[in-house]
Amino acid sequence: MSLDLFKMNILYDYYGSLLTDKQREIFKMHYLNDYSLGEISQSLNISRQGVYDTLKRAEATLKFYEEKLELIKKHDILTKKVEKINELLDNLYLHVQSEEISKMIQEIKTILNELNQ
Amino acid sequence: MSLDLFKMNILYDYYGSLLTDKQREIFKMHYLNDYSLGEISQSLNISRQGVYDTLKRAEATLKFYEEKLELIKKHDILTKKVEKINELLDNLYLHVQSEEISKMIQEIKTILNELNQ
Repeated sequence: MSLDLFKMNILYDYYGSLLTDKQREIFKMHYLNDYSLGEISQSLNISRQGVYDTLKRAEATLKFYEEKLELIKKHDILTKKVEKINELLDNLYLHVQSEEISKMIQEIKTILNELNQ
Repeated sequence: MSLDLFKMNILYDYYGSLLTDKQREIFKMHYLNDYSLGEISQSLNISRQGVYDTLKRAEATLKFYEEKLELIKKHDILTKKVEKINELLDNLYLHVQSEEISKMIQEIKTILNELNQ
């Protein structure tokens, strides 16, 4: 496969709902469960070429949607901003003595880290 | 139109890049610039029925993608969390006297509000 596993898994997380059931099944077998094309072919009783074509179409679909919507790119920007806020909160935490304020900062950090999921 | 203008504008913000050029042109004329079907029909020299069909297909496309990806729903959740953090930061701000800490809180709020755009 030309594109790496990591990238494919992320694309699937974002856009997997836009694949057909068949594409999703084969994509998951290959990229999430590490089945070879031959193993998928045997397991689903379809040709190896059919498996290959379906995978390629699924990959193209996922890449198409990222080009159009850029959700992964946007999420990376969000992640960096959340990290920056986390750093600032950690710094703030070091500057306060009050137990109450420390708790408030912790509460903020908890909600903040939910943003990044 | 059965669905309200506000909802259509939000859907367009998120998924407009997935429409065809023609759908996008007609959608913008109608929903963003408030042209009637008749006015669009005259302006683009296509039938009123053609304008209507294109608009309906565009609406269906936008709704389809929201059903699959739920970006608007997810953004609403993010907005609520950002609001909650903002409230906590405002509360924190009231509890500190130090100029330095106040500035740090302001800096956090600036980055935080970028998350919501």
